[in-house]
Amino acid sequence: MPTGLFTDLYELTMAHSYFLRGLNQTATFAYFVRAPVPNRRFLLFAGLDPLLAALQDFRFAEDDLAYLESLGLFRPAFLDFLGRLRFTGEVWAMEEGEICFPGEPLLLITAPRIEAQLVETLVLNLLNYATLVASKAARILLAAGPEAVVVDFSPRRDHGTEAALHAARASFLAGFHGTSNTLAGKLYGIPVVGTMAHSYVLSFPDELSAFRAFAEDHPNPVLLIDTYDPLLGARNAARVAQELRERGKRITGVRLDSGDLVALSREVRRILDEAGFPDIRIFVSGDLDEYRILEFRRRGGVAWGFGVGTRLGVSWDLPALGGVYKLVEDEKGPRMKTSPGKVTLPGRCQVWRQGFRDLVALDEEEGQGRALLRKVMARGERLVPPVDLARRREEVRRALFALPEELADLTPAAAPTYPVDYSQALRAWVAAGG
Amino acid sequence: MPTGLFTDLYELTMAHSYFLRGLNQTATFAYFVRAPVPNRRFLLFAGLDPLLAALQDFRFAEDDLAYLESLGLFRPAFLDFLGRLRFTGEVWAMEEGEICFPGEPLLLITAPRIEAQLVETLVLNLLNYATLVASKAARILLAAGPEAVVVDFSPRRDHGTEAALHAARASFLAGFHGTSNTLAGKLYGIPVVGTMAHSYVLSFPDELSAFRAFAEDHPNPVLLIDTYDPLLGARNAARVAQELRERGKRITGVRLDSGDLVALSREVRRILDEAGFPDIRIFVSGDLDEYRILEFRRRGGVAWGFGVGTRLGVSWDLPALGGVYKLVEDEKGPRMKTSPGKVTLPGRCQVWRQGFRDLVALDEEEGQGRALLRKVMARGERLVPPVDLARRREEVRRALFALPEELADLTPAAAPTYPVDYSQALRAWVAAGG
Repeated sequence: MPTGLFTDLYELTMAHSYFLRGLNQTATFAYFVRAPVPNRRFLLFAGLDPLLAALQDFRFAEDDLAYLESLGLFRPAFLDFLGRLRFTGEVWAMEEGEICFPGEPLLLITAPRIEAQLVETLVLNLLNYATLVASKAARILLAAGPEAVVVDFSPRRDHGTEAALHAARASFLAGFHGTSNTLAGKLYGIPVVGTMAHSYVLSFPDELSAFRAFAEDHPNPVLLIDTYDPLLGARNAARVAQELRERGKRITGVRLDSGDLVALSREVRRILDEAGFPDIRIFVSGDLDEYRILEFRRRGGVAWGFGVGTRLGVSWDLPALGGVYKLVEDEKGPRMKTSPGKVTLPGRCQVWRQGFRDLVALDEEEGQGRALLRKVMARGERLVPPVDLARRREEVRRALFALPEELADLTPAAAPTYPVDYSQALRAWVAAGG
Repeated sequence: MPTGLFTDLYELTMAHSYFLRGLNQTATFAYFVRAPVPNRRFLLFAGLDPLLAALQDFRFAEDDLAYLESLGLFRPAFLDFLGRLRFTGEVWAMEEGEICFPGEPLLLITAPRIEAQLVETLVLNLLNYATLVASKAARILLAAGPEAVVVDFSPRRDHGTEAALHAARASFLAGFHGTSNTLAGKLYGIPVVGTMAHSYVLSFPDELSAFRAFAEDHPNPVLLIDTYDPLLGARNAARVAQELRERGKRITGVRLDSGDLVALSREVRRILDEAGFPDIRIFVSGDLDEYRILEFRRRGGVAWGFGVGTRLGVSWDLPALGGVYKLVEDEKGPRMKTSPGKVTLPGRCQVWRQGFRDLVALDEEEGQGRALLRKVMARGERLVPPVDLARRREEVRRALFALPEELADLTPAAAPTYPVDYSQALRAWVAAGG
């Protein structure tokens, strides 16, 4: 689908002016997140593949141009120009799943100024949400610990169907084990998971009949035990498991979705163990997030896995990421905006990582460590294949669970500090007022 | 696009079981929001047209079925059944833009159980977000007052491009004046608005040159005056306005996006007035929401209009709406789930409005006042035309600004109460435990 018209109108009015004045020399814009970001000691970069796809689809269809003409704002020559316009720029970016920080560039676009300007809304929309939800997923995984299975249950509360796809993809990239979103399973190869709903149980004369029916029809049943009374539900689950055992079959687990999850999970564990089913797993869900999972574990709750929905998909404690996309260099050299409280980085940069100290340096400076920004697009063509999500997920999980304590700390903080330094040359340039 | 696969996996595993057991009699599900909803004294219902469109597109494509087959969960006969499945149900719903409350049904779906079950994720995803953002927009309008122009600047922080379209549509329906989202302008006929970005100003040798250029190239220029110093910016704007006046042209306004907006807006107003331009309008933006707009006005800030972005599009103080979709009736009669703290309404209902007291009554009861639920779809076909957004917006604005004080109150509250009563028959049924 053409993506050109997904843009704030002012990008087009500015582009119109640049076009009329021949101001279309090469310019560089940087995407970065201004520090501090409340409650986030690190970010997980995501959304690059969807963005690169959108840049490749960047064009204006005939009816887009007709619509723009109807606004009476643009001269015909500009509309002709838009009709031919494609994204021909160069993109440098961190790899999806990279642990990163506010205050450092995550993506740089160098292109004729009009192209670079017109894609701003796409860049911000796609990277802000994917990075937001990947970062939230990373925190939830840290709370749940490396042994727990954590899955995305967010589609019903995400902001539209596309958001639900981004949430499933970004949380899997961060290390989640699966999603309830069947379409995301098909599109991204993410394992799909699910149990049953209360309405299923209500569709049978009693809970036991519902459990028997579901176990009969499903190869790996997870039974929802809290439609009526969770402890009676656990006993009914054990009874069905006993019946199945006699036929060489089993149930995979039970799910708790309401009530005092800590107390109930312990009781349910005891009931299942005493009935001879220590292998039946307990899944817990219901408005969970990193804070509630930590508290659940601290208070001795017992769970093999967690289903996380609403608070993942909308990043409940930080529902938007304030990433920005700023002009950092043009044909006249590095540029900087200095409105109070809003200073941007000047010039094209590289980010060098040594351990977890990042050094932001100007492009021409020599750096040490791992260079985090890679060239991923040139002349509008992708230089790197799409992320292999399953492989990358393993790497990201390893990196997450190896984070130093001060970064892995999940305590809320209004203004965390970040391990980001700026090179001497860069500081000198800023100190001199650009 | 086929929408069948946008579903939580458990809807499919439950449907599989219903299919195998011939449990596909007619059932009714209700969409409602559980009370209380923090910080919301009323809701504005939205998202019906997108949902009806999605229901009409409900089907499984060949490759969807191939994907489902690959999961190894479903028998071939069920997959054949899914391949032929369409949504053939009946839908009753409130009109988009209706002021409504938690605790009352906003939409009812009656269909063969499998269809009604499979569309749950779509219903919840589309109605929850649209209603969330329309409700937030309504509050922002109440804060800004009936005279102010309020526009949607949210695309760069919304959760994906589809979310941005929903946000533009729902906020316009609520009474906003326009959006910066050009694609939404084309698709929904919403007026599109925009000014300029800091990067435009930075692309010229100085602010004055940038202002002159933009005013030259744009018929109704709004100049962003805070790239360097907002008060110098205001003087530069006045100077350009003076030059334009001599040629019979004008500038529409100036925009402030940072700093102490109250103090700056007053100073800028004074500068423009003293320069002889009382007609140049001041637009204010920058992380605004209803709380900040109220505070801005209370402290004497001066603005003709507000651009509202991030905090509108993600509904900052309530980033998800916990709407649910529950089985309320099947061939065995009304059904109810009674897990602790989670009680649903039994049976098919109507909502009767008298003033702003709503009475929820069972379908067979006689009600008084205005019946809020209308039949909008039968046998899977729409019975009502798509909303005329521009016309409906006028009605919604009138209703909003006529709200009684206790509903229009914007003060945060963890547990607001709602003017919703339940009929005697309905109470008796619930009291009897269903």
